[in-house]
Amino acid sequence: MINKKQILKKRPIGLPGADTWELQESKVRDLEDGEMLLHQEYISLDPAMRGWINETRSYISPVEVGQVMRAGSVGKIIKTKGKTVFKEGDYVSGWGGVQNYCITKGENFYPVDPKKANLPTYLGVLGMPGMTAYFGITEVGKIKNGDTVLVSGAAGAVGGLVGQIAKIRGCRVIGIAGGKSKCDYLTQNLGFDGSIDYKNENVTKSIKNHCPKGIDVFFDNVGGEILDSALIFLRKNARVVICGAISQYNSTDNIKGPKNYLSLLVNRASMQGMVVFDYAPMYGKAMSEIAKWIEEKKIFHKEDVYDGIENFRETFLRLFSGDKMGKLILKI
Amino acid sequence: MINKKQILKKRPIGLPGADTWELQESKVRDLEDGEMLLHQEYISLDPAMRGWINETRSYISPVEVGQVMRAGSVGKIIKTKGKTVFKEGDYVSGWGGVQNYCITKGENFYPVDPKKANLPTYLGVLGMPGMTAYFGITEVGKIKNGDTVLVSGAAGAVGGLVGQIAKIRGCRVIGIAGGKSKCDYLTQNLGFDGSIDYKNENVTKSIKNHCPKGIDVFFDNVGGEILDSALIFLRKNARVVICGAISQYNSTDNIKGPKNYLSLLVNRASMQGMVVFDYAPMYGKAMSEIAKWIEEKKIFHKEDVYDGIENFRETFLRLFSGDKMGKLILKI
Repeated sequence: MINKKQILKKRPIGLPGADTWELQESKVRDLEDGEMLLHQEYISLDPAMRGWINETRSYISPVEVGQVMRAGSVGKIIKTKGKTVFKEGDYVSGWGGVQNYCITKGENFYPVDPKKANLPTYLGVLGMPGMTAYFGITEVGKIKNGDTVLVSGAAGAVGGLVGQIAKIRGCRVIGIAGGKSKCDYLTQNLGFDGSIDYKNENVTKSIKNHCPKGIDVFFDNVGGEILDSALIFLRKNARVVICGAISQYNSTDNIKGPKNYLSLLVNRASMQGMVVFDYAPMYGKAMSEIAKWIEEKKIFHKEDVYDGIENFRETFLRLFSGDKMGKLILKI
Repeated sequence: MINKKQILKKRPIGLPGADTWELQESKVRDLEDGEMLLHQEYISLDPAMRGWINETRSYISPVEVGQVMRAGSVGKIIKTKGKTVFKEGDYVSGWGGVQNYCITKGENFYPVDPKKANLPTYLGVLGMPGMTAYFGITEVGKIKNGDTVLVSGAAGAVGGLVGQIAKIRGCRVIGIAGGKSKCDYLTQNLGFDGSIDYKNENVTKSIKNHCPKGIDVFFDNVGGEILDSALIFLRKNARVVICGAISQYNSTDNIKGPKNYLSLLVNRASMQGMVVFDYAPMYGKAMSEIAKWIEEKKIFHKEDVYDGIENFRETFLRLFSGDKMGKLILKI
């Protein structure tokens, strides 16, 4: 049995190039006692993965050169040996990496039910992006009924759910995304109250038009100039959730700092970072609430699934070109 | 009776110039019923005053051209008419502006006791800077025993008290100030555990040396490159208190944004702005606690008092040149 895997070959400067990863093959070794063989079916492609291949200090140790690229995955246990956490035929999700097969004792994997939702959903609204959105907007953003919420990267896996949860909680929600079709998706499919097309509009002016009384919560996935524009419109005691900064991840210059940060002072506002792993003890509660919303059709979700482990890099780059809609997933 | 007053003449670009204010004289008018005549003895000079003469939206309405320059003051009621809030001979502190005499019904003034502390102290550790330090480090910085606290502008009125309160609460405190004499003042007079001379040291390297395990709270009065250096060393769940940005107030270019702000994300840290006025209902509690610390000699304070209302601008500029030690006050 042959395992295909994407190995980190060279740390990239800027966008990952053809020499960043290498597709390698190796024979799947025999299982030891307590081990399970996982046949991976889908891989999650997330902006955060760009950070994991930098060498710098972060919230998680970097992927080392020579290692299989780290990624969330979902698949089926096809073989076990001895006493194991899961049994043959079980479906699980966890950190299987960009490879077809993964041998695990079950740490960092949890069971999923393919009858309740399609497998890709467990990498989307019921997976890490879902948890990020849920805890980011409720625990860090502390949304309350009547708040005006602005979301950047709003057509993405996290942003789309952030806005929908805010709507369920009684907020007015404006999303920022690139291009007309994404903006239409926000208002027509996700139920946002308004959208701003950063590729074709002056973001500062549009925020002013959409949020004449200012913003109570800004959920930022993007950073850069969009963050600066949003800071201008903070209301008193506003909360800025720093979930990501996709506009800056491939920056080869310095990161652009938010020059309007003194709006935090004037408006007694706070800007707070978050890392979803901190909320792991509460994932269960969030998942069942999101699952209920899906069942009640209060939440729309969309996975954008591409095919082939050999297309990993090209597909990954869609995160940064904006050329995808909803949660980006690779079928392998 | 003649009142001398500094009138805002022209909004400055950059540092206030000779044409920013004009010293004018006028006759003190007769009192109406309920009014009191306050003879002002000391005026508080604070960095925030630079912001009040900009035209832009802020936490307080700007001083209008033609108005007396806003400033905190302390003085004695020398005349009253009818039924008044205070009586002749009372000492009060409040917002009297840069002028010798002020007619008031008592709004925004409160009584002070010249026997308990010298009058200038009521503009320093027992005044607005004191309140800012107290609520900034306790309520926003949320210091707790064992925290490592870094303070910029540490030899200033606010910074010096911030560090001393943090020491009382069991923190390790490092201060950043400009020049050897200020740094000596921090460690020898104020009891800081260490100091960094930003004029003669590489701030990033020095923070690393002084705080090898990182920073739990950064109290920032300065902004700019010092804020960026501090962000590098945030510990998990660190708090950054944005109290001011004196390095940027006279900037004629754009404000410099903190390019290392993504340290907030990696470290789940928060950066929060504060405006002292929000804590007004709790001033009394803070004042009595600070007064007790002064009595117990747990707090050292120093007012740097200059003389003459005609020297207002030159004295004010010492805030930005760094050419003063402790709380800057003008005797008029």
